[in-house]
Amino acid sequence: MSKVRVHNFSISLDGFATGDGRTFDAPFGHAGTRLHEWMFATRFGGSMQGRPGGSGGVDNAFAERFGPGIGAEIMGRGKFGPQTGPWDDLGTEREWRGWWGPNPPFHTPVFVLTHHPRPAIEMAGGTVFHFIDASPQDALAAAREAAGGLDVRIGGGPTVVRDFLAAGLIDSLHLAQVPIVLGRGVRLWDGLEGIEARYDVEAVSAPSGVTHLSFNRRG
Amino acid sequence: MSKVRVHNFSISLDGFATGDGRTFDAPFGHAGTRLHEWMFATRFGGSMQGRPGGSGGVDNAFAERFGPGIGAEIMGRGKFGPQTGPWDDLGTEREWRGWWGPNPPFHTPVFVLTHHPRPAIEMAGGTVFHFIDASPQDALAAAREAAGGLDVRIGGGPTVVRDFLAAGLIDSLHLAQVPIVLGRGVRLWDGLEGIEARYDVEAVSAPSGVTHLSFNRRG
Repeated sequence: MSKVRVHNFSISLDGFATGDGRTFDAPFGHAGTRLHEWMFATRFGGSMQGRPGGSGGVDNAFAERFGPGIGAEIMGRGKFGPQTGPWDDLGTEREWRGWWGPNPPFHTPVFVLTHHPRPAIEMAGGTVFHFIDASPQDALAAAREAAGGLDVRIGGGPTVVRDFLAAGLIDSLHLAQVPIVLGRGVRLWDGLEGIEARYDVEAVSAPSGVTHLSFNRRG
Repeated sequence: MSKVRVHNFSISLDGFATGDGRTFDAPFGHAGTRLHEWMFATRFGGSMQGRPGGSGGVDNAFAERFGPGIGAEIMGRGKFGPQTGPWDDLGTEREWRGWWGPNPPFHTPVFVLTHHPRPAIEMAGGTVFHFIDASPQDALAAAREAAGGLDVRIGGGPTVVRDFLAAGLIDSLHLAQVPIVLGRGVRLWDGLEGIEARYDVEAVSAPSGVTHLSFNRRG
């Protein structure tokens, strides 16, 4: 059976995976880029942004596991865009196509969970955004079918990762804990008391200051 | 000037430094001993409990910094005991003297912050519990005077550490982050947004699974 994986999911010391006040210009609200600078500094981050170079140590080793073996992603609507409620851009020239430009870094089908389904959006590079109103279980079934035997990545945000963890659907979870105290935003851990009992947990701190936490489901 | 230090202050992944449901039999509530097993497993922990042996690696290196150079401790009433409100044990044979037995591990004056002052309690081994109703600043002045030029340890619980951090009074903070999700209790980080800007922060993970976070105030 294919695996369900989370990669490069960054949280603050106080457990926030996104900040407060998200807008079209600030996907992570007041957190700005602080949760992800560790990743941008790696070779993997450089290649995503079309820059040469970058660090090649433990941060990069974790970061570059993002792509290989993945056949589909599931993300929350909040990761796709800051809008809530019914879409107001349907059929207009200003259609929102996510934060990632014309060639998003997913290169697979992406299932966006929303209570407001809309037609799929096909991007360059193989990314197709599908908008579905589904439970974690049903979304995973759809993503598995689209993934053609490859693994499914749960892309976030925190509410989606939390829901999939609570439902027992995640096989491996990589968190990058960044040494900042955000104070506000959306927490990962709420409602997950005792979740560690289902996983082997490993921690390793990187020279960047980030601590990588690996949760791997017990066999 | 003497330093103000926090040592061996353990938190869960979700930032709780104590659990829910504290009683005379459960100083950390539903957390039980899970937040401190890493410390009990060290040589330092063994010596505190009168056991020989224990680990001698990074966990121990941090743990044994607890004592040297400290001349006084400040703790919250919640660390001293689970009671709240007026003391009901004054002058009785069942006087509560803390969780630590006749010879507590402090061996210095200890200032217990409470809105209900009471006479001091002198223990074996040099520990004297003083009960004072004071602001962080005033408590620190009293502790510094009692410490005779040595450093002052802020002993917790989370509310007290948080208050002293917010007041800018902590020079060095050692946190031991344990890979469990407690879900309930008292959080350390609330109200401390951006606190990292005042500190150099270092993280190191130990084979035990604990990640030690060192906050040292910028010069």
